[in-house]
Amino acid sequence: MFAMSTPFAYTLDSIQERIEGLTPTSRRLSSLRGQFLDSRAFDAQLAQGDPVLYEYYPVHRPEVAGELFSGLTTLYPGTVGGEYFMTKGHFHALLETGEIYSCLSGQGKLVMETPEGTWQVTDMSPGVVVYIPPRWAHRTVNTGPNKFSFFWVCPADAGHDYGSIERQGFRKRVVEQNGSPTLIDNPHWLPPAQRV
Amino acid sequence: MFAMSTPFAYTLDSIQERIEGLTPTSRRLSSLRGQFLDSRAFDAQLAQGDPVLYEYYPVHRPEVAGELFSGLTTLYPGTVGGEYFMTKGHFHALLETGEIYSCLSGQGKLVMETPEGTWQVTDMSPGVVVYIPPRWAHRTVNTGPNKFSFFWVCPADAGHDYGSIERQGFRKRVVEQNGSPTLIDNPHWLPPAQRV
Repeated sequence: MFAMSTPFAYTLDSIQERIEGLTPTSRRLSSLRGQFLDSRAFDAQLAQGDPVLYEYYPVHRPEVAGELFSGLTTLYPGTVGGEYFMTKGHFHALLETGEIYSCLSGQGKLVMETPEGTWQVTDMSPGVVVYIPPRWAHRTVNTGPNKFSFFWVCPADAGHDYGSIERQGFRKRVVEQNGSPTLIDNPHWLPPAQRV
Repeated sequence: MFAMSTPFAYTLDSIQERIEGLTPTSRRLSSLRGQFLDSRAFDAQLAQGDPVLYEYYPVHRPEVAGELFSGLTTLYPGTVGGEYFMTKGHFHALLETGEIYSCLSGQGKLVMETPEGTWQVTDMSPGVVVYIPPRWAHRTVNTGPNKFSFFWVCPADAGHDYGSIERQGFRKRVVEQNGSPTLIDNPHWLPPAQRV
Protein backbone atom coordinates (compact mmCIF):
# COMPACT_ATOMS: atom_id res chain seq x y z
CA MET A 1 0.00 0.00 0.00
CA PHE A 2 2.98 2.34 0.45
CA ALA A 3 5.31 3.12 -2.43
CA MET A 4 8.38 0.98 -2.14
CA SER A 5 11.18 3.44 -2.65
CA THR A 6 9.97 6.88 -1.56
CA PRO A 7 9.53 8.12 2.01
CA PHE A 8 6.03 7.97 3.46
CA ALA A 9 4.35 8.92 6.71
CA TYR A 10 1.74 7.20 8.81
CA THR A 11 -0.08 8.54 11.82
CA LEU A 12 -0.86 7.04 15.21
CA ASP A 13 -4.32 8.13 16.29
CA SER A 14 -4.74 10.45 19.27
CA ILE A 15 -5.26 7.63 21.78
CA GLN A 16 -2.28 5.79 20.24
CA GLU A 17 -4.14 2.52 19.78
CA ARG A 18 -4.51 2.58 16.00
CA ILE A 19 -2.67 3.63 12.84
CA GLU A 20 -4.97 5.93 10.91
CA GLY A 21 -6.22 4.60 7.58
CA LEU A 22 -4.93 1.07 8.14
CA THR A 23 -7.24 -1.90 8.64
CA PRO A 24 -5.96 -4.04 11.50
CA THR A 25 -5.54 -7.78 11.54
CA SER A 26 -7.54 -9.20 14.44
CA ARG A 27 -6.61 -12.20 16.52
CA ARG A 28 -9.61 -13.71 18.23
CA LEU A 29 -9.76 -16.12 21.15
CA SER A 30 -10.19 -19.09 18.78
CA SER A 31 -6.83 -18.43 17.16
CA LEU A 32 -5.05 -18.98 20.49
CA ARG A 33 -6.40 -22.48 21.08
CA GLY A 34 -3.89 -24.50 23.07
CA GLN A 35 -2.02 -21.41 24.24
CA PHE A 36 -3.78 -20.80 27.57
CA LEU A 37 -3.07 -23.15 30.46
CA ASP A 38 -6.71 -23.77 31.42
CA SER A 39 -8.19 -25.43 28.33
CA ARG A 40 -11.52 -25.99 30.07
CA ALA A 41 -11.87 -22.29 30.80
CA PHE A 42 -10.85 -21.59 27.20
CA ASP A 43 -13.59 -23.86 25.82
CA ALA A 44 -16.21 -22.43 28.17
CA GLN A 45 -15.28 -18.88 27.19
CA LEU A 46 -15.31 -19.70 23.47
CA ALA A 47 -18.78 -21.21 23.83
CA GLN A 48 -19.96 -17.73 24.83
CA GLY A 49 -18.43 -16.04 21.77
CA ASP A 50 -15.11 -15.40 20.10
CA PRO A 51 -13.82 -12.02 21.30
CA VAL A 52 -10.91 -10.12 19.79
CA LEU A 53 -7.81 -10.53 21.99
CA TYR A 54 -5.62 -8.17 20.01
CA GLU A 55 -5.34 -6.18 16.81
CA TYR A 56 -2.21 -5.30 14.94
CA TYR A 57 -1.46 -2.74 12.27
CA PRO A 58 1.54 -3.88 10.24
CA VAL A 59 3.37 -1.48 7.92
CA HIS A 60 4.87 -3.89 5.44
CA ARG A 61 8.12 -3.38 3.59
CA PRO A 62 10.16 -5.62 1.29
CA GLU A 63 11.52 -8.47 3.43
CA VAL A 64 15.18 -7.73 2.82
CA ALA A 65 18.08 -6.67 5.06
CA GLY A 66 18.26 -2.90 5.55
CA GLU A 67 14.49 -2.39 5.45
CA LEU A 68 12.46 -2.14 8.68
CA PHE A 69 9.11 -3.72 9.53
CA SER A 70 7.07 -1.58 11.90
CA GLY A 71 3.58 -1.37 13.30
CA LEU A 72 1.32 -1.07 16.28
CA THR A 73 -0.37 -3.76 18.37
CA THR A 74 -3.28 -3.24 20.76
CA LEU A 75 -4.17 -5.93 23.28
CA TYR A 76 -7.61 -5.94 24.88
CA PRO A 77 -8.01 -6.45 28.63
CA GLY A 78 -9.25 -9.81 29.87
CA THR A 79 -8.32 -13.25 31.17
CA VAL A 80 -8.87 -16.92 30.33
CA GLY A 81 -8.95 -19.05 33.45
CA GLY A 82 -7.08 -16.27 35.28
CA GLU A 83 -4.36 -16.02 32.60
CA TYR A 84 -4.20 -12.59 31.00
CA PHE A 85 -4.95 -12.00 27.32
CA MET A 86 -1.72 -12.29 25.36
CA THR A 87 -0.26 -12.39 21.87
CA LYS A 88 0.76 -15.66 20.25
CA GLY A 89 4.42 -14.87 20.69
CA HIS A 90 7.22 -15.95 18.43
CA PHE A 91 10.90 -16.25 17.70
CA HIS A 92 12.16 -14.52 14.59
CA ALA A 93 12.69 -16.94 11.70
CA LEU A 94 16.01 -15.16 11.21
CA LEU A 95 16.99 -15.78 14.82
CA GLU A 96 19.83 -13.24 14.93
CA THR A 97 17.52 -10.21 14.66
CA GLY A 98 16.34 -7.92 17.46
CA GLU A 99 13.22 -5.83 17.96
CA ILE A 100 12.16 -2.65 19.73
CA TYR A 101 8.85 -2.32 21.58
CA SER A 102 7.70 1.13 22.71
CA CYS A 103 4.67 1.23 25.02
CA LEU A 104 2.06 3.83 24.04
CA SER A 105 -0.92 3.14 26.31
CA GLY A 106 -2.07 0.86 29.10
CA GLN A 107 0.11 -1.54 31.00
CA GLY A 108 1.44 -5.00 30.41
CA LYS A 109 4.35 -7.34 30.47
CA LEU A 110 6.76 -8.44 27.80
CA VAL A 111 7.65 -12.13 28.26
CA MET A 112 10.88 -13.21 26.60
CA GLU A 113 13.10 -16.26 26.40
CA THR A 114 16.00 -17.71 24.43
CA PRO A 115 16.08 -21.09 22.68
CA GLU A 116 18.17 -22.31 25.64
CA GLY A 117 15.45 -21.34 28.13
CA THR A 118 16.87 -18.18 29.67
CA TRP A 119 13.89 -15.96 30.42
CA GLN A 120 13.09 -12.38 31.29
CA VAL A 121 9.83 -10.54 31.92
CA THR A 122 9.74 -6.73 31.65
CA ASP A 123 6.97 -4.37 32.76
CA MET A 124 5.66 -1.97 30.15
CA SER A 125 3.79 1.30 30.61
CA PRO A 126 3.70 4.46 28.47
CA GLY A 127 7.21 5.80 27.83
CA VAL A 128 8.93 2.46 28.40
CA VAL A 129 10.94 1.16 25.45
CA VAL A 130 12.24 -2.40 25.54
CA TYR A 131 15.14 -3.70 23.51
CA ILE A 132 14.63 -7.35 22.60
CA PRO A 133 18.07 -8.58 21.54
CA PRO A 134 18.56 -11.08 18.73
CA ARG A 135 17.57 -14.67 19.69
CA TRP A 136 14.87 -13.74 22.24
CA ALA A 137 11.30 -14.93 21.62
CA HIS A 138 8.69 -12.39 22.74
CA ARG A 139 5.05 -12.27 23.82
CA THR A 140 3.07 -9.38 25.28
CA VAL A 141 0.46 -9.74 28.02
CA ASN A 142 -2.15 -7.14 28.99
CA THR A 143 -2.17 -6.99 32.79
CA GLY A 144 -4.26 -3.82 33.09
CA PRO A 145 -7.94 -2.88 33.02
CA ASN A 146 -7.66 -0.95 29.72
CA LYS A 147 -6.26 -1.54 26.25
CA PHE A 148 -2.48 -1.99 26.12
CA SER A 149 -0.78 -0.75 22.96
CA PHE A 150 2.78 -0.57 21.74
CA PHE A 151 4.74 0.43 18.67
CA TRP A 152 7.30 -2.02 17.30
CA VAL A 153 10.17 -2.04 14.84
CA CYS A 154 12.31 -4.95 13.63
CA PRO A 155 14.45 -5.77 10.61
CA ALA A 156 12.12 -6.46 7.66
CA ASP A 157 13.80 -9.79 6.97
CA ALA A 158 13.29 -11.07 10.56
CA GLY A 159 10.25 -13.23 9.77
CA HIS A 160 8.23 -15.19 12.35
CA ASP A 161 8.65 -18.62 13.87
CA TYR A 162 5.47 -19.40 15.83
CA GLY A 163 5.89 -23.16 15.91
CA SER A 164 8.08 -23.74 18.91
CA ILE A 165 6.01 -21.41 21.10
CA GLU A 166 2.73 -22.99 19.96
CA ARG A 167 3.99 -26.40 20.98
CA GLN A 168 4.76 -25.69 24.63
CA GLY A 169 4.38 -21.96 25.30
CA PHE A 170 6.81 -19.75 27.17
CA ARG A 171 8.58 -20.84 30.33
CA LYS A 172 6.70 -18.25 32.38
CA ARG A 173 2.99 -17.47 32.36
CA VAL A 174 1.30 -14.33 33.69
CA VAL A 175 -1.81 -14.97 35.77
CA GLU A 176 -3.99 -12.96 38.10
CA GLN A 177 -3.53 -14.00 41.73
CA ASN A 178 -5.19 -12.03 44.53
CA GLY A 179 -5.92 -9.32 41.98
CA SER A 180 -2.30 -8.88 40.91
CA PRO A 181 -0.30 -10.06 37.90
CA THR A 182 1.88 -12.94 39.02
CA LEU A 183 4.46 -15.04 37.19
CA ILE A 184 4.07 -18.80 37.40
CA ASP A 185 6.04 -21.64 35.87
CA ASN A 186 4.53 -23.19 32.77
CA PRO A 187 4.07 -26.89 33.60
CA HIS A 188 4.20 -27.78 29.90
CA TRP A 189 7.61 -26.20 29.38
CA LEU A 190 10.53 -28.55 28.89
CA PRO A 191 14.22 -27.66 28.68
CA PRO A 192 15.70 -28.06 25.20
CA ALA A 193 17.36 -31.40 25.94
CA GLN A 194 14.03 -32.98 26.98
CA ARG A 195 11.97 -31.84 23.99
CA VAL A 196 10.97 -34.36 21.34
CA MET B 1 26.10 0.73 29.23
CA PHE B 2 23.43 -1.89 28.52
CA ALA B 3 24.20 -5.58 28.69
CA MET B 4 24.82 -6.88 25.22
CA SER B 5 22.74 -10.02 25.11
CA THR B 6 19.87 -9.65 27.55
CA PRO B 7 16.72 -7.54 27.10
CA PHE B 8 16.71 -4.11 28.71
CA ALA B 9 14.28 -1.22 29.03
CA TYR B 10 14.73 2.51 28.80
CA THR B 11 12.23 5.22 29.55
CA LEU B 12 11.24 8.37 27.71
CA ASP B 13 10.58 11.14 30.20
CA SER B 14 7.06 12.49 30.64
CA ILE B 15 7.52 15.35 28.18
CA GLN B 16 9.13 12.92 25.73
CA GLU B 17 12.20 15.04 25.13
CA ARG B 18 14.74 12.95 27.01
CA ILE B 19 15.66 9.35 27.80
CA GLU B 20 15.85 9.01 31.56
CA GLY B 21 19.29 8.31 32.98
CA LEU B 22 21.14 8.91 29.71
CA THR B 23 23.46 11.86 29.18
CA PRO B 24 22.77 13.44 25.80
CA THR B 25 25.31 14.41 23.19
CA SER B 26 24.87 18.12 22.42
CA ARG B 27 25.39 19.74 19.04
CA ARG B 28 26.07 23.46 19.37
CA LEU B 29 25.86 26.17 16.74
CA SER B 30 29.64 26.02 16.19
CA SER B 31 29.45 22.40 15.07
CA LEU B 32 27.21 23.38 12.14
CA ARG B 33 29.62 25.90 10.62
CA GLY B 34 29.13 26.02 6.86
CA GLN B 35 25.72 24.36 7.04
CA PHE B 36 23.51 27.46 7.17
CA LEU B 37 23.09 29.52 4.02
CA ASP B 38 23.76 32.90 5.62
CA SER B 39 27.34 32.63 6.89
CA ARG B 40 27.38 36.28 8.00
CA ALA B 41 24.35 35.73 10.22
CA PHE B 42 25.99 32.53 11.49
CA ASP B 43 29.17 34.39 12.49
CA ALA B 44 27.23 37.22 14.12
CA GLN B 45 25.14 34.75 16.11
CA LEU B 46 28.18 32.75 17.19
CA ALA B 47 29.86 35.97 18.41
CA GLN B 48 27.00 36.25 20.93
CA GLY B 49 27.45 32.71 22.24
CA ASP B 50 27.32 29.09 21.17
CA PRO B 51 23.83 27.77 21.89
CA VAL B 52 22.79 24.13 21.79
CA LEU B 53 20.88 23.42 18.55
CA TYR B 54 20.01 19.84 19.41
CA GLU B 55 20.64 17.01 21.80
CA TYR B 56 20.50 13.32 21.08
CA TYR B 57 20.27 10.28 23.30
CA PRO B 58 21.70 7.27 21.47
CA VAL B 59 21.10 3.73 22.73
CA HIS B 60 24.10 1.94 21.29
CA ARG B 61 24.20 -1.69 20.25
CA PRO B 62 26.81 -3.81 18.49
CA GLU B 63 27.09 -2.50 14.93
CA VAL B 64 26.09 -5.72 13.23
CA ALA B 65 23.18 -6.75 11.00
CA GLY B 66 20.14 -7.85 13.00
CA GLU B 67 20.74 -5.39 15.86
CA LEU B 68 18.92 -2.04 16.00
CA PHE B 69 20.27 1.39 16.87
CA SER B 70 17.67 3.61 18.53
CA GLY B 71 17.42 6.87 20.38
CA LEU B 72 15.77 10.21 20.80
CA THR B 73 16.69 13.60 19.36
CA THR B 74 15.44 16.98 20.59
CA LEU B 75 15.90 20.08 18.45
CA TYR B 76 15.67 23.52 20.03
CA PRO B 77 13.63 26.29 18.39
CA GLY B 78 15.47 29.08 16.60
CA THR B 79 16.83 30.36 13.30
CA VAL B 80 20.13 31.46 11.77
CA GLY B 81 19.58 34.15 9.17
CA GLY B 82 15.97 33.03 8.86
CA GLU B 83 16.93 29.35 8.39
CA TYR B 84 15.51 27.11 11.07
CA PHE B 85 17.71 25.17 13.50
CA MET B 86 18.45 21.77 12.00
CA THR B 87 20.48 18.60 12.47
CA LYS B 88 23.63 17.98 10.46
CA GLY B 89 21.92 15.39 8.30
CA HIS B 90 23.51 12.34 6.76
CA PHE B 91 23.33 9.38 4.46
CA HIS B 92 23.86 5.98 6.02
CA ALA B 93 27.37 4.64 5.40
CA LEU B 94 25.65 1.37 4.51
CA LEU B 95 23.45 3.11 1.96
CA GLU B 96 20.89 0.31 1.60
CA THR B 97 19.49 0.76 5.12
CA GLY B 98 16.29 2.56 6.11
CA GLU B 99 15.22 4.39 9.26
CA ILE B 100 12.03 5.16 11.17
CA TYR B 101 11.35 8.55 12.80
CA SER B 102 8.43 8.91 15.19
CA CYS B 103 7.57 12.45 16.29
CA LEU B 104 6.99 12.82 20.03
CA SER B 105 6.66 16.58 20.61
CA GLY B 106 6.72 19.89 18.77
CA GLN B 107 6.63 20.32 15.04
CA GLY B 108 9.18 20.17 12.29
CA LYS B 109 10.09 18.92 8.88
CA LEU B 110 12.08 15.93 7.74
CA VAL B 111 14.18 16.83 4.69
CA MET B 112 15.29 13.87 2.57
CA GLU B 113 17.05 13.18 -0.70
CA THR B 114 18.68 10.39 -2.66
CA PRO B 115 22.22 10.40 -4.06
CA GLU B 116 20.64 11.17 -7.45
CA GLY B 117 18.93 14.31 -6.13
CA THR B 118 15.34 13.17 -5.77
CA TRP B 119 13.99 15.01 -2.73
CA GLN B 120 11.06 14.92 -0.36
CA VAL B 121 10.11 17.00 2.68
CA THR B 122 7.61 15.61 5.20
CA ASP B 123 5.85 17.48 8.00
CA MET B 124 6.20 16.01 11.47
CA SER B 125 4.02 16.50 14.53
CA PRO B 126 3.21 14.19 17.44
CA GLY B 127 1.84 10.87 16.23
CA VAL B 128 3.42 11.12 12.79
CA VAL B 129 5.82 8.29 11.92
CA VAL B 130 7.98 8.63 8.81
CA TYR B 131 9.55 5.74 6.95
CA ILE B 132 12.89 6.77 5.42
CA PRO B 133 13.64 4.08 2.84
CA PRO B 134 17.15 2.84 2.17
CA ARG B 135 19.30 5.33 0.20
CA TRP B 136 17.59 8.53 1.45
CA ALA B 137 19.70 11.09 3.35
CA HIS B 138 17.77 12.76 6.16
CA ARG B 139 17.85 15.98 8.19
CA THR B 140 15.30 17.33 10.66
CA VAL B 141 14.36 20.98 11.03
CA ASN B 142 12.48 22.57 13.94
CA THR B 143 9.86 24.88 12.42
CA GLY B 144 7.91 25.49 15.63
CA PRO B 145 8.18 27.73 18.68
CA ASN B 146 8.93 24.86 21.09
CA LYS B 147 11.30 21.92 21.27
CA PHE B 148 10.82 19.30 18.55
CA SER B 149 11.61 15.71 19.53
CA PHE B 150 11.46 12.38 17.81
CA PHE B 151 12.31 8.75 18.45
CA TRP B 152 14.33 6.91 15.82
CA VAL B 153 15.31 3.34 14.95
CA CYS B 154 17.66 2.08 12.24
CA PRO B 155 19.74 -1.04 11.61
CA ALA B 156 22.73 -0.97 13.98
CA ASP B 157 25.16 -1.48 11.09
CA ALA B 158 23.82 1.53 9.12
CA GLY B 159 26.60 3.93 10.13
CA HIS B 160 26.77 7.61 9.16
CA ASP B 161 28.09 9.42 6.10
CA TYR B 162 28.10 13.15 6.89
CA GLY B 163 30.62 14.17 4.26
CA SER B 164 28.51 14.67 1.16
CA ILE B 165 25.90 16.70 3.05
CA GLU B 166 28.57 18.86 4.74
CA ARG B 167 30.02 19.75 1.35
CA GLN B 168 26.89 21.20 -0.27
CA GLY B 169 23.90 20.66 1.98
CA PHE B 170 20.51 19.32 0.99
CA ARG B 171 18.77 20.37 -2.20
CA LYS B 172 16.02 22.11 -0.22
CA ARG B 173 16.35 24.47 2.71
CA VAL B 174 13.65 25.43 5.20
CA VAL B 175 13.47 29.16 5.98
CA GLU B 176 11.02 31.47 7.68
CA GLN B 177 9.24 33.71 5.19
CA ASN B 178 6.37 35.97 6.31
CA GLY B 179 6.33 34.01 9.56
CA SER B 180 5.85 30.62 7.89
CA PRO B 181 8.21 27.72 7.11
CA THR B 182 8.98 27.84 3.41
CA LEU B 183 11.09 25.57 1.18
CA ILE B 184 13.69 27.25 -0.96
CA ASP B 185 16.27 25.87 -3.38
CA ASN B 186 19.78 25.55 -2.03
CA PRO B 187 21.97 27.63 -4.37
CA HIS B 188 25.02 25.56 -3.41
CA TRP B 189 23.43 22.30 -4.47
CA LEU B 190 24.73 20.68 -7.65
CA PRO B 191 23.35 17.64 -9.45
CA PRO B 192 25.61 14.56 -9.19
CA ALA B 193 27.10 14.98 -12.66
CA GLN B 194 28.32 18.51 -11.90
CA ARG B 195 29.99 17.75 -8.56
CA VAL B 196 33.75 17.70 -8.33
